[in-house]
Amino acid sequence: MPHKPIEYADASPAVRAVYDDIKSSRNLPDVNNFWKYLAHDPVTLKRTWESIKEVMAPGALDPLTKELVYLAVSVSNGCGYCIASHTAAARKAGMSEAMFGELMAVVGMANETNRLVNGYRVPVDPMFDK
Amino acid sequence: MPHKPIEYADASPAVRAVYDDIKSSRNLPDVNNFWKYLAHDPVTLKRTWESIKEVMAPGALDPLTKELVYLAVSVSNGCGYCIASHTAAARKAGMSEAMFGELMAVVGMANETNRLVNGYRVPVDPMFDK
Amino acid sequence: MPHKPIEYADASPAVRAVYDDIKSSRNLPDVNNFWKYLAHDPVTLKRTWESIKEVMAPGALDPLTKELVYLAVSVSNGCGYCIASHTAAARKAGMSEAMFGELMAVVGMANETNRLVNGYRVPVDPMFDK
Amino acid sequence: MPHKPIEYADASPAVRAVYDDIKSSRNLPDVNNFWKYLAHDPVTLKRTWESIKEVMAPGALDPLTKELVYLAVSVSNGCGYCIASHTAAARKAGMSEAMFGELMAVVGMANETNRLVNGYRVPVDPMFDK
Amino acid sequence: MPHKPIEYADASPAVRAVYDDIKSSRNLPDVNNFWKYLAHDPVTLKRTWESIKEVMAPGALDPLTKELVYLAVSVSNGCGYCIASHTAAARKAGMSEAMFGELMAVVGMANETNRLVNGYRVPVDPMFDK
Amino acid sequence: MPHKPIEYADASPAVRAVYDDIKSSRNLPDVNNFWKYLAHDPVTLKRTWESIKEVMAPGALDPLTKELVYLAVSVSNGCGYCIASHTAAARKAGMSEAMFGELMAVVGMANETNRLVNGYRVPVDPMFDK
Repeated sequence: MPHKPIEYADASPAVRAVYDDIKSSRNLPDVNNFWKYLAHDPVTLKRTWESIKEVMAPGALDPLTKELVYLAVSVSNGCGYCIASHTAAARKAGMSEAMFGELMAVVGMANETNRLVNGYRVPVDPMFDK
Repeated sequence: MPHKPIEYADASPAVRAVYDDIKSSRNLPDVNNFWKYLAHDPVTLKRTWESIKEVMAPGALDPLTKELVYLAVSVSNGCGYCIASHTAAARKAGMSEAMFGELMAVVGMANETNRLVNGYRVPVDPMFDK
Repeated sequence: MPHKPIEYADASPAVRAVYDDIKSSRNLPDVNNFWKYLAHDPVTLKRTWESIKEVMAPGALDPLTKELVYLAVSVSNGCGYCIASHTAAARKAGMSEAMFGELMAVVGMANETNRLVNGYRVPVDPMFDK
Repeated sequence: MPHKPIEYADASPAVRAVYDDIKSSRNLPDVNNFWKYLAHDPVTLKRTWESIKEVMAPGALDPLTKELVYLAVSVSNGCGYCIASHTAAARKAGMSEAMFGELMAVVGMANETNRLVNGYRVPVDPMFDK
Repeated sequence: MPHKPIEYADASPAVRAVYDDIKSSRNLPDVNNFWKYLAHDPVTLKRTWESIKEVMAPGALDPLTKELVYLAVSVSNGCGYCIASHTAAARKAGMSEAMFGELMAVVGMANETNRLVNGYRVPVDPMFDK
Repeated sequence: MPHKPIEYADASPAVRAVYDDIKSSRNLPDVNNFWKYLAHDPVTLKRTWESIKEVMAPGALDPLTKELVYLAVSVSNGCGYCIASHTAAARKAGMSEAMFGELMAVVGMANETNRLVNGYRVPVDPMFDK
């Protein structure tokens, strides 16, 4: 039996507190499925949300750049849900269609050259180790 | 017998032409090992260089963002050479130590949540498909 | 044209012999889709079943631990079918909901720190090589 | 220029506080390289340590099982440092040589069957979705 | 909002030129979805098509071998669309059902032994480096 | 303490029997490190060798094609030891330098387009499901 999403009405106070923080931090009427499934483990729900909130906050990198990187990793890993949700998040943060196209091109190229490097067993240049 | 790097002095005219273009495009005295190994296959050398030049050129995304994404994918894939060379390239393009730290944090978090999504078999929210 | 499952009624004697052994070993009324698709290659069907039977038998590790590890790897690799079937198998072997939650947390954390290690190019401590 | 480890003597008070907690929690004279490299980003150092401490604590799964899973994921991902350090950690938690052998066998088998499933495009059995 | 396929009737002249070349090179009445989605980025569409045309052309390796390798990588990476389309392409190039079965067996075995090597930390034999 | 290779002189009769079969089957004076490390688990050693012998035997696919696929998967997964040993094995089976170059080009391209497919969320064409 697969997991079911835990809706706000059915959630424990601890889970509701996380949902409330997500909704107010991101100005959303409801949380998305990721959180509703993770709610089966309230400890992981809370830790994951607090970690993401800290990691994705504006800092030396702006929120759009962080979303682009999150999407790039998810595409590289082939996580369908993550690609759908982070494409939406990146667009909300300002990703244009042209940016998306270039992002995919870079992700594709990196995956290609990563394997060329593996296959040719290229040793690290001394200048990169100095 | 592993491959050996092909130095400029030993390269064919076709390979030298690519080396020359890399050096002048990037204002470098020499090409790095990736190209010297790929030179064993001049067709792939030329196609890869021309593709990278096109993909990494400034466009809707600036060169620093592209280098950050390239590095993020390489870290996620665990390609040691690529991590070393693209960390250097990203720094040259303006990546500060603080940016590097935040980039790693995003890459780590994306890899974590990608697996939480897989494990809980989270279905795509209808709003992400509309 | 994608493959179709090969049902018992349509299976060759060699395939039926494997199906029979799976059903009696696991006390099941029917084999699941994995075996019905693999039956297109009876040699691989037989070798894979015999290998799994040997590997998953109780030994220094108990069957539940082995199922947890199998599920962890499948989640990390993002194999949807494998996640569904091995979640069921792990539950049958005794995995509670709390165990599942902690398992996912470990898998997520390992995937995160694996990438932090890659990105920071952390060298192996001498004490781990002694 | 690659990162260098940050030793205790050179660490900021915030980093030292994390090092002290790791050493006392794990009863170790020094922290290993992972932490000394992550210390370049004190925020990620602190979050990662606190997350690991929470995730790896005994719960529904015992510490040995958690270490086995951590090692299994690291082996599957091919993270050399993580394999070395978590093999040591798993042994300290009670992993025998026989357990290690069986663990590797399960990890290998899971990686094999994950791909057989992909290749044959096996659909999820209805019983796994009920 | 996910991307939609760009049909020939709605395509720009630049995209149509690529579609025409794909159709005539492969003797097909229409291009498949991969190209219709990639058409959102005409630069990447053109570069990817020209790269694939060059890479997949008969050379030292015949087209069937190249398709088998393409399929093997796609299966190993778990890319569902790629598995479906390259299984079809490999069959068109001459892959029999028996070849498919053996291909999957090799891909599965390689994924298994790759992890056994990782886990046992096997060092490269000197003879492979000479 | 990492594992050490188990040399023939120190091996148990069961391990020696496998070593002997490898050496005579492949006409080699000694087995390579992979087997000497796997020998720590004689059950896995025997099963893995017998599986590989069966999988890599000539059949619908010739030995060279199988070695090329094995190498392609190992390169895609980034397993350093496997790349070194299977490059040697593929050469022994007849892989020319030109074949190696084309193989790497296909592996690189497949890794690139796998990610483009993921990112654009390309749905399977109906013709591939018929």
